[in-house]
Amino acid sequence: MMRTRPLKVALLGCGVVGSEVARIMTTHADDLAARIGAPVELAGVAVRRPSRVREGIPAELVTTDATALVKRGDIDVVVEVIGGIEPARTLITTAFAHGASVVSANKALLAQDGAALHAAAEEHGKDLYYEAAVAGAIPLIRPLRESLAGDKVNRVLGIVNGTTNFILDKMDSTGAGYQEALDEATALGYAEADPTADVEAFDAAAKAAILAGIGFHTRVRLDDVYREGMTEVTAADFRSAKEMGCTIKLLAICERSKDGASVTARVHPAMIPLTHPLASVRGAYNAVFVESDAAGQLMFYGPGAGGAPTASAVLGDLVAVCRNRLNGATGPGESAYAALPVSPMGEVVTRYHISLDVADKPGVLAQVATVFAEHGVSIDTVRQQGKDGEASLVVVTHRASDASLSGTVEALRKLDTVRGVASIMRVEGE
Amino acid sequence: MMRTRPLKVALLGCGVVGSEVARIMTTHADDLAARIGAPVELAGVAVRRPSRVREGIPAELVTTDATALVKRGDIDVVVEVIGGIEPARTLITTAFAHGASVVSANKALLAQDGAALHAAAEEHGKDLYYEAAVAGAIPLIRPLRESLAGDKVNRVLGIVNGTTNFILDKMDSTGAGYQEALDEATALGYAEADPTADVEAFDAAAKAAILAGIGFHTRVRLDDVYREGMTEVTAADFRSAKEMGCTIKLLAICERSKDGASVTARVHPAMIPLTHPLASVRGAYNAVFVESDAAGQLMFYGPGAGGAPTASAVLGDLVAVCRNRLNGATGPGESAYAALPVSPMGEVVTRYHISLDVADKPGVLAQVATVFAEHGVSIDTVRQQGKDGEASLVVVTHRASDASLSGTVEALRKLDTVRGVASIMRVEGE
Repeated sequence: MMRTRPLKVALLGCGVVGSEVARIMTTHADDLAARIGAPVELAGVAVRRPSRVREGIPAELVTTDATALVKRGDIDVVVEVIGGIEPARTLITTAFAHGASVVSANKALLAQDGAALHAAAEEHGKDLYYEAAVAGAIPLIRPLRESLAGDKVNRVLGIVNGTTNFILDKMDSTGAGYQEALDEATALGYAEADPTADVEAFDAAAKAAILAGIGFHTRVRLDDVYREGMTEVTAADFRSAKEMGCTIKLLAICERSKDGASVTARVHPAMIPLTHPLASVRGAYNAVFVESDAAGQLMFYGPGAGGAPTASAVLGDLVAVCRNRLNGATGPGESAYAALPVSPMGEVVTRYHISLDVADKPGVLAQVATVFAEHGVSIDTVRQQGKDGEASLVVVTHRASDASLSGTVEALRKLDTVRGVASIMRVEGE
Repeated sequence: MMRTRPLKVALLGCGVVGSEVARIMTTHADDLAARIGAPVELAGVAVRRPSRVREGIPAELVTTDATALVKRGDIDVVVEVIGGIEPARTLITTAFAHGASVVSANKALLAQDGAALHAAAEEHGKDLYYEAAVAGAIPLIRPLRESLAGDKVNRVLGIVNGTTNFILDKMDSTGAGYQEALDEATALGYAEADPTADVEAFDAAAKAAILAGIGFHTRVRLDDVYREGMTEVTAADFRSAKEMGCTIKLLAICERSKDGASVTARVHPAMIPLTHPLASVRGAYNAVFVESDAAGQLMFYGPGAGGAPTASAVLGDLVAVCRNRLNGATGPGESAYAALPVSPMGEVVTRYHISLDVADKPGVLAQVATVFAEHGVSIDTVRQQGKDGEASLVVVTHRASDASLSGTVEALRKLDTVRGVASIMRVEGE
């Protein structure tokens, strides 16, 4: 059964992930050949700095000319682990045009241009696989687009960024502030020198766009995802969360509306009950809940980043794409037939935890409660704490639309007796 | 792109799972068509008792002649949800011979005859998919055989039977004995009238065989799986477990040996630390840990049984098989190239918790400790409790082979001062 001509793989990028891909392709060559039905061969590695020693990669395979590599014409699969929009996008579309299928780990590119890339793959009859783009080694793309292909996904709720989970976990367990926890994450290598993509939730938003798109069979772009980073979460917020029996996580939440006619996708810090399985996801781990009509509630948990875990996902895709090629077939492409509208954040319905600094005098609570009532936001609990003429008021609401809550907060800020809105946080997972 | 001639599906069995499959095929027909690229049509339903009213299924589709149905020749996919060995086995091979691919939820049959069924599928160029055979709706087969196809799986450890997990969870949370907890499970519909397959772990052993086979690319049959039921777990065992900071779960454990040259598969009750994620899997839920070289530790969690969840898994397979058919391709078949030997239980290495009833007199501990030492089993902790001339001795060992432990226990039974061995339980997940 084994074909002897090897399938040729071009690797674009040889950093943390790429070097692991190359290493496993070498050390597990026999297993890969048996599982694919033909040997796979590393035919070229495009890098920016060829001078760096790359252990185990023959020097003659290394090139700085990625474009020439993907244009060679004899490449079966291009593995793109460069990241970023350009030159990755052009290299991928060039690869399709020159006969290769593509395995990518590029969440930013797929969240921004997934539809165009899928179209290019389909035009040339090639595969585009990207399990590694979301939650590292955790199988999520394949379960969503294949295992649940006969089901109706209603909700995807998860922790999809390890850096921010590490920081929040540290704040929770030690009482540290944001900056202190970030410094530790940086020192330990969990956060990059410029942590913006993680802490401002651009990374998580890209993953939310990809998950929502696949789960709802609808195009969801990065711009459609409401995004709020976690740089303003304070030690005080964690104390408030604890008082409610909650912790704080940065969550990616993709939901189908109750009537099924629209979807939303958002990323923001939120309180979740300590009894929720996501509350106990520690350190840099990721975990994603998927709720569907027939399957009910599924959870997927594992390392969300790192060279070897991400390489595992890349290689799983590589095996599938190689098998498809030998079969003369392609795997599932883009599925966007449902084409549901993506509703703005104002239409999201959830619960809220609001801390107000107020004057410590009679009648304040009545004023505040009136504002909530006028905006149709029903109050679940209120806790009042006073000292030295100042008081704080913590309001937890029932479910209300984000637009109603925003209107409420705007009106609260205009009250003379409200000195400030200390924090607003959504409450999820109940 | 949409083909108009529908793909024809024959359903064998219309019980709890089959009726859900039929219902979803009807209610989600448009979604299925869009995801497959062609409509799917229920072409026949084989049942034993045609008189039972089957809501939503046209009477003219119902037949008692399953053989004639799979021989029709115009059937694209046979969905087998009868269970048991015969007639399911003959119907499946007949289906392949008459041009159909097969989706099955039949763990017993696949654990016993998976190799022969895969061979029949391959001979006729057809697909055999069975995600629903293990852990209901939880995607496990596909992640193991596709997502991790580029990785090396070292261990699969999980709770794969909901009935026994419900019973053990009840015993843990209420202090109930086995019979009392079983009665409640039966009353609530979690246990069948004859619970043997569940409580004697035949069901879990079949799933372990399937998971080990796929994970290790090696044929593992039901007979290769060491099996111990959970009918002898007592309330006292749970009290012992609590004292160790553990609970008791019925675990399926598939392991590659340290040198990688052999594998083991076993199912038995075991103590696991309360801090292990599997300890908090409640009620009838299932959860499976997978440990691999590159991906590290992954966990999959969800409902392990029930009509709708199992139907979700069946329909995911149905979509994949239909897509393959339209592509003129087949998905991954059996992968048993590694052909590793399956070692007997005696070679399994783990830790043990042993409760002994002993005479309450000086020198007993020394005698007992000598027996452990003579068999090369190192003791981690000993706890001694005496009352009225009788005493109990609880020994927790370091890691030792099952054969060494068995030898130790045999020798202990021969000591005059040992009145009885109250319980032996393995300790896992540390």
